Amino acid sequence: MDIQFLGTGAGVPAKQRNVTSIALKLLDERNSVWLFDCGEGTQQQILRSSIRPRKIEKIFITHLHGDHIFGLPGLLSSRSFQGGSEPLTIVGPKGIKEFIQTSLKISETHLKYPIHYNEIEEGGLIFKDHQFQVHCLPLDHRITCYGYRIEEADQPGELLVEKLQKEEVPSGPIYGRLKKGETIHLENGKILYGKDYLGPDKKGRTVTILGDTRKHPNSVELAKNADVLVHESTFNQREAQLAKAYYHSTTVEAGQVAKEANVKQLFLTHISARYIGKAAVELENEAKKVFKQTKVVKDFDEFSIPTK
Amino acid sequence: MDIQFLGTGAGVPAKQRNVTSIALKLLDERNSVWLFDCGEGTQQQILRSSIRPRKIEKIFITHLHGDHIFGLPGLLSSRSFQGGSEPLTIVGPKGIKEFIQTSLKISETHLKYPIHYNEIEEGGLIFKDHQFQVHCLPLDHRITCYGYRIEEADQPGELLVEKLQKEEVPSGPIYGRLKKGETIHLENGKILYGKDYLGPDKKGRTVTILGDTRKHPNSVELAKNADVLVHESTFNQREAQLAKAYYHSTTVEAGQVAKEANVKQLFLTHISARYIGKAAVELENEAKKVFKQTKVVKDFDEFSIPTK
Repeated sequence: MDIQFLGTGAGVPAKQRNVTSIALKLLDERNSVWLFDCGEGTQQQILRSSIRPRKIEKIFITHLHGDHIFGLPGLLSSRSFQGGSEPLTIVGPKGIKEFIQTSLKISETHLKYPIHYNEIEEGGLIFKDHQFQVHCLPLDHRITCYGYRIEEADQPGELLVEKLQKEEVPSGPIYGRLKKGETIHLENGKILYGKDYLGPDKKGRTVTILGDTRKHPNSVELAKNADVLVHESTFNQREAQLAKAYYHSTTVEAGQVAKEANVKQLFLTHISARYIGKAAVELENEAKKVFKQTKVVKDFDEFSIPTK
Repeated sequence: MDIQFLGTGAGVPAKQRNVTSIALKLLDERNSVWLFDCGEGTQQQILRSSIRPRKIEKIFITHLHGDHIFGLPGLLSSRSFQGGSEPLTIVGPKGIKEFIQTSLKISETHLKYPIHYNEIEEGGLIFKDHQFQVHCLPLDHRITCYGYRIEEADQPGELLVEKLQKEEVPSGPIYGRLKKGETIHLENGKILYGKDYLGPDKKGRTVTILGDTRKHPNSVELAKNADVLVHESTFNQREAQLAKAYYHSTTVEAGQVAKEANVKQLFLTHISARYIGKAAVELENEAKKVFKQTKVVKDFDEFSIPTK
């Protein structure tokens, strides 16, 4: 599980930062990529990454502002052109379907795969399978905007091979069945219970990715004990009034959310173009005073999210 | 008058070539820029050029395929964000208004300038003022697609200063009025006619920019005696069957149009991503066998169009 930032700017693209898109790479876990937001030029950023558009399984949209969605029609077209045939799920606020369907209709784009739309009616559990579940909650932005909490299910522990060898259980298909937790009846009458030969469960990881927002209790709830929190930080603390007026957050407010939620790592993104070079470093230092494990990310930054 | 190619690729963006957009820079003539097509990422290309979005006065769309229009919502938003307040005219096939209006509505984008839409009903004269006139005609593509012929009006010749000095006409505001073609009654009773003191008219320039198309007589008509013809060349001549199947042109077909129309300069664009490096040079050589003054353009290439 890796997270890569494809666009880390705010509002309009700048030379240094494209508009928002974040890739959660689940290649080991499910051989797919989940995308969060898709500003204009996301497919061009993807060209400069190792991501294949056809591997994108789900796209979660936090809100419908242009810098978070205008890259969708192009990416969807290219995914088809480049051989994507698997269904794609798009989750987002009401309106995302109309935007995409109008764009595809007007441009006479015929995709070679189906899109499943999930327009969020209200917050809560929006996806769950054997590996992952995703919750969302509304945040506090000028328009309807959501944050997403992605939780990996706990995985069974390692097979205790040494213990099996000590008990002289011959290796073979039995080992695989025990790893799955099955009960095995040996020919000598002995019964082996899978759970007796597995180490402790590996705890699943949690990643929280928030849309644009003022500081809000739902941010803390979504981020509770997360391994990674991605939070916007459009402004520095001196511009707190501006942040409030535009329904955005400052460095310090993002740091406070990370601290209150007791996350492991905070990534700050959605950085206003006014902060370049040294000014971006100052943003990070400002947030670190509140929450030490903070990083202001740049386009193409990629981080591994280790298992616990 | 300069022409700059902001995106020269076909269908989907590639690392070397973004999708289509062409800027006709009329800075000396009317302090504005006319854009032809606006694929995704055009505003990011503009960031890397000297063009200011607020100087864009008109956008002409050849056809509604995504690689020619998906950059519009973002560019329109940024033009507003960056202080553009002058009206913008958008010309294109029916449907362009619905695409833009839906995109702006869904994203709750409120532009600080009005857009005047001109959805083309049928070919012909679509714009005319004292400086320029623009004609369009349908071409032969999979969907409705137009080519544009931009004609600059002839300009009055240079003021013949030496002749005025020889006749001992004192310099001053009179010179400016004569340059405008006015008739001047001097105090000594002499009458000066502007036309007698002006050199021959400077012929206006003609630029023809075509959308995606198979070879078609309307291309030749639009390009007749043009100073510059911009023609797509998605494929090389070996792929003529493919070009026909996809409603595109080859190098040789583009060269034939240039030759039949007797243009001065042919620029080939909309180059398939399969032609990189040496293969792109071969495209140019292939077209040059038919029409010598040919250039395969790259992203950001810019050319001055000299007066005659």
